[in-house]
Amino acid sequence: MVERVAVVGAGRMGSGAARRLASRGYRVVVWNRTREKAERLAREAGVEAAGSLAEAIAGVEAALAFVSDDDALLSVVSQLRRSDGLVFVNSATTTPRASIAAARYLEGLGIQYVEAPVIGGPGALERGEAIVLAAAPRSALAPVLPLLSELGELVKVGDSYGTAAALKLAFNNLLLTTLVGLGESLLILDAYGVDKALFSSILERTVFSGLAGKYFERAVSKPKPTFTVSLAEKDARYAFQALADRGYPRLVSHAVSNVYATLSQMGFGGEDYVGVYRLLKKAGAGGREEH
Amino acid sequence: MVERVAVVGAGRMGSGAARRLASRGYRVVVWNRTREKAERLAREAGVEAAGSLAEAIAGVEAALAFVSDDDALLSVVSQLRRSDGLVFVNSATTTPRASIAAARYLEGLGIQYVEAPVIGGPGALERGEAIVLAAAPRSALAPVLPLLSELGELVKVGDSYGTAAALKLAFNNLLLTTLVGLGESLLILDAYGVDKALFSSILERTVFSGLAGKYFERAVSKPKPTFTVSLAEKDARYAFQALADRGYPRLVSHAVSNVYATLSQMGFGGEDYVGVYRLLKKAGAGGREEH
Amino acid sequence: MVERVAVVGAGRMGSGAARRLASRGYRVVVWNRTREKAERLAREAGVEAAGSLAEAIAGVEAALAFVSDDDALLSVVSQLRRSDGLVFVNSATTTPRASIAAARYLEGLGIQYVEAPVIGGPGALERGEAIVLAAAPRSALAPVLPLLSELGELVKVGDSYGTAAALKLAFNNLLLTTLVGLGESLLILDAYGVDKALFSSILERTVFSGLAGKYFERAVSKPKPTFTVSLAEKDARYAFQALADRGYPRLVSHAVSNVYATLSQMGFGGEDYVGVYRLLKKAGAGGREEH
Amino acid sequence: MVERVAVVGAGRMGSGAARRLASRGYRVVVWNRTREKAERLAREAGVEAAGSLAEAIAGVEAALAFVSDDDALLSVVSQLRRSDGLVFVNSATTTPRASIAAARYLEGLGIQYVEAPVIGGPGALERGEAIVLAAAPRSALAPVLPLLSELGELVKVGDSYGTAAALKLAFNNLLLTTLVGLGESLLILDAYGVDKALFSSILERTVFSGLAGKYFERAVSKPKPTFTVSLAEKDARYAFQALADRGYPRLVSHAVSNVYATLSQMGFGGEDYVGVYRLLKKAGAGGREEH
Ligand SMILES: NC(=O)C1=CN([C@@H]2O[C@H](COP(=O)(O)OP(=O)(O)OC[C@H]3O[C@@H](n4cnc5c(N)ncnc54)[C@H](OP(=O)(O)O)[C@@H]3O)[C@@H](O)[C@H]2O)C=CC1
Ligand SMILES: NC(=O)C1=CN([C@@H]2O[C@H](COP(=O)(O)OP(=O)(O)OC[C@H]3O[C@@H](n4cnc5c(N)ncnc54)[C@H](OP(=O)(O)O)[C@@H]3O)[C@@H](O)[C@H]2O)C=CC1
Ligand SMILES: NC(=O)C1=CN([C@@H]2O[C@H](COP(=O)(O)OP(=O)(O)OC[C@H]3O[C@@H](n4cnc5c(N)ncnc54)[C@H](OP(=O)(O)O)[C@@H]3O)[C@@H](O)[C@H]2O)C=CC1
Repeated sequence: MVERVAVVGAGRMGSGAARRLASRGYRVVVWNRTREKAERLAREAGVEAAGSLAEAIAGVEAALAFVSDDDALLSVVSQLRRSDGLVFVNSATTTPRASIAAARYLEGLGIQYVEAPVIGGPGALERGEAIVLAAAPRSALAPVLPLLSELGELVKVGDSYGTAAALKLAFNNLLLTTLVGLGESLLILDAYGVDKALFSSILERTVFSGLAGKYFERAVSKPKPTFTVSLAEKDARYAFQALADRGYPRLVSHAVSNVYATLSQMGFGGEDYVGVYRLLKKAGAGGREEH
Repeated sequence: MVERVAVVGAGRMGSGAARRLASRGYRVVVWNRTREKAERLAREAGVEAAGSLAEAIAGVEAALAFVSDDDALLSVVSQLRRSDGLVFVNSATTTPRASIAAARYLEGLGIQYVEAPVIGGPGALERGEAIVLAAAPRSALAPVLPLLSELGELVKVGDSYGTAAALKLAFNNLLLTTLVGLGESLLILDAYGVDKALFSSILERTVFSGLAGKYFERAVSKPKPTFTVSLAEKDARYAFQALADRGYPRLVSHAVSNVYATLSQMGFGGEDYVGVYRLLKKAGAGGREEH
Repeated sequence: MVERVAVVGAGRMGSGAARRLASRGYRVVVWNRTREKAERLAREAGVEAAGSLAEAIAGVEAALAFVSDDDALLSVVSQLRRSDGLVFVNSATTTPRASIAAARYLEGLGIQYVEAPVIGGPGALERGEAIVLAAAPRSALAPVLPLLSELGELVKVGDSYGTAAALKLAFNNLLLTTLVGLGESLLILDAYGVDKALFSSILERTVFSGLAGKYFERAVSKPKPTFTVSLAEKDARYAFQALADRGYPRLVSHAVSNVYATLSQMGFGGEDYVGVYRLLKKAGAGGREEH
Repeated sequence: MVERVAVVGAGRMGSGAARRLASRGYRVVVWNRTREKAERLAREAGVEAAGSLAEAIAGVEAALAFVSDDDALLSVVSQLRRSDGLVFVNSATTTPRASIAAARYLEGLGIQYVEAPVIGGPGALERGEAIVLAAAPRSALAPVLPLLSELGELVKVGDSYGTAAALKLAFNNLLLTTLVGLGESLLILDAYGVDKALFSSILERTVFSGLAGKYFERAVSKPKPTFTVSLAEKDARYAFQALADRGYPRLVSHAVSNVYATLSQMGFGGEDYVGVYRLLKKAGAGGREEH
């Protein structure tokens, strides 16, 4: 069983996972492309920082990657060298296609691959309350089962790579579409001078009560981002691409992705993704003042 | 106080309201553009059917309209004649603009106007469990308060016409966007062979539990429609227009409306609106066979 | 035959038409909602300015309206009083629906109606080189044929109201879609550091040579607007609505309209509509600076 | 200088190129994934068919690939083995990203790479009237200059890989957007019963005269496809991806791509891409009959 683990990527999610695993008794070594972030995390969380990826994975049984996107995944994977017995877990939200490509590549290096995207943010990870969606053959998954279960509830989606990635994109597509829809609905309220709190209280009495409770306040205020506009743009785009890759039509993912792309282009890529409505109003105002 | 009420429109919603009000002791007279429907309802619900709109509103204190859309509302309203003291309640989902136009027109005829769109379907109406959103000056609303409260919980949105219509569109925009997002997410699952029941069970653990409970089964099966693809197309388009009328940008309503428009064009306008996913698959298959 | 004509709306198009008609020997009286504009035009073009719409149409055989949109048309039309024998020509770009509504309303006032939208900008109008698309019964069109022919080539589209408006929207939909496509293509060039002049020289050798000649320079520079972002947003939206009104799906008009709506929201509503690319880049920069 | 050339891909474009080059005195060997197609072309055009890719490129100085898309390009490239001195020309429409990846990969095999997408269809290729857009360092391009010039006018876009691919996508984005706009405009005409020939005659007098001349007839009839709905879907999607890859927003490519994706899903992927309007009407009818 795994006792030593490398966390690849010391961003929001990687940090949450590193803290959790350290607190549960794992020996954690962190590697991050930009070294300072790994070192800061190491100091704060009492874990080790590795100077290189090779160093990070030397002597661990598993690596757990929380990097941004397909490119980051493929870039990390292509830096790995033969390492028999290692299990590489990809917990980033990527396209099924990229995940399958990573699996094929690692096969050639004797590295086992687990596709394990996560539902839940950095806080949920740190509290061990995330949902971990896993796709992998049994032999690859078995050694990391206890490890992944520390992060939250483990759901085995399938043996075939791509299935967990698809399920994660299906979930995020639903969430992001819903939140952009919420943003547009708030614009309607504004356009006609309707009280937003009244809307929220009505949502409370419908199937949207959970959503309103969790996101309404965050949609109209300016919270510290746990998930950014840039990542939301990417995820909606990946939903689009996942469908395109299999010759399926797209329904709204393109529009959702475009909303986030426009916000990114205006300089809001690093802001909290729930604030679509607030950012759009700011953009409008900003543009008008600037003009 | 109102004791006699004309229900204008004997469609799904009008029928639900007529049954409810009759069961609560109101004297209900129903008028419908296509006469047969009114007569059938009259027989079934033990209410009266009027041969003309004029006949229907003669001798009632209030008229409650559940017609399709802006055009239907304006067409009905323009057939009314001077009728001092009557309160005309519009419970259709219309644009704020059409509702305001109706109010202005009725003012000239001495008829009071209440904008009162409804959240909840025909079943909820009939059980008195809908949410009735009302916008009107106090003097117009007061006489119909008890009547409207029979249909469910009454929420006063504002004194100004347009506000309740806007809130209703904001709600439907959120719901329709979410359901189209759900449809697209189901396509992703299909494209990668992921079990839909697993997805549903994951939604149960998130803010989407209410949504999954109410709509998941309906999204994949073939239920009797309570709300149709055509009406969904209209509502998403009205959200779009409500924003356009005030010079606001649109985020996803155009894409949502377009999905429903494409389904309508393929002949699915009368089907249940939750079945986006199922209808799209059928369309794909149909087109392919036909080709 | 018409010798005296009222021009309704002293905007860009109304001004071009007034100058042209005055130079061709018509007695022109101008009315504009905002009076100053009418008076300025009267001074510059040597025509008369009327203090009210009633005054403008008293004593003329025809009125020629170049107002912004459906609302402006219906507002102007609803201010008219009985005026037997007058021909009212609507040269604004409106929906078929609004044009048909105007025709019906004017019928009740004994006023004949000609739907006559125009292809070509203010300059073309002033030089008599526009294309005037006309829909009206022969009896209404006959008296204004010479007048309209002064503005350019007259094309009779049909006897039924709505057909010329539809043809105009079909044309503008094609033009606006093409120009937004051009804007997006320029973004692609920018994103990969490709010379825009090279692209233009390639377009010269294709079916786009006419387009490149007329619009390329204007797309990348900052010209005085002859047609604005706001009007473009409106026209693409009207194409969308014209299709929706007949239950047809939309293909790209929603996306085109949304691009212009977003630019309007950012404060660019009054800028030249060809500059999509330039404005988007400015918006990006603006947002980023402001942030 | 090149005298012997391998044409990779015996589809529409590859066939056109093979015929042209054979007729100009080159020794052409054709390879195609599905062997029969290569053999048929060999018989018809009097060229050689190779049994394997390795066989095809053994003994030629240059290979010219006309395969479908990014995946096909990367699949072909990854089957190549060390082959010093060979110049591999990619004439497919691919994303800049895939082209750059191909270049990097071939570098490791001692193969020179030229990115050379083409404007113009199979007929133009066969007559030597295409426009060949080239991006490559001078040393790679020089040996194939005479060869590529046989296909039409050669335009050097830049030294950097990606630039010609971007220019090609910019062109196709403009063309496809315009043609979908044309399709939507034809729907508007239909919806209001306007004569399509009249519309065409008006386009003749505008910047769209070239477009109308080349595509109008094809848009309303049922021609043998020279370029398919599937490839159009791909190209619009690649325009979208090219922008996304550099963090740029998308304006209409998503909508254009979606129109073609929906048509593909309905079974029209192999039809002529200009017939958007005709296919949509057929889909509508088909769906309705089937329902
Ligand atoms: N935040 C959330 O709530 C959730 C996020 N996710 C997913 O988890 C993943 C990580 O998200 P999050 O932690 O929020 O993102 P952050 O932006 O906080 O962190 C991104 C990490 O990826 C690294 N990275 C980016 N590009 C490369 C590259 N080319 N090579 C190596 N490393 C690279 C970054 O390194 P550097 O510091 O050098 O830039 C950084 O460590 C994403 O796929 C996201 O979609 C999933 C569920 C929830
Ligand atoms: N510009 C162009 O190149 C072309 C324009 N068109 C169409 O012609 C029409 C006019 O365009 P253009 O001249 O450029 O627009 P402008 O914005 O320059 O002028 C608009 C005119 O409409 C008037 N107006 C707006 N709202 C109302 C109202 N509610 N009641 C009365 N008058 C009103 C304005 O009056 P006020 O001054 O008081 O605001 C002004 O006179 C539009 O429909 C446009 O789409 C068609 C072809 C080409
Ligand atoms: N047609 C046109 O007018 C124009 C086309 N283009 C571009 O040129 C390219 C070719 O288009 P066109 O000839 O029309 O397309 P076709 O569909 O006629 O031919 C496609 C070719 O690609 C081959 N192919 C597909 N996938 C693979 C793969 N994975 N490995 C190896 N070969 C593969 C096919 O082989 P098989 O027979 O085995 O399926 C076939 O030879 C495309 O990129 C297109 O966008 C550019 C300008 C104009």
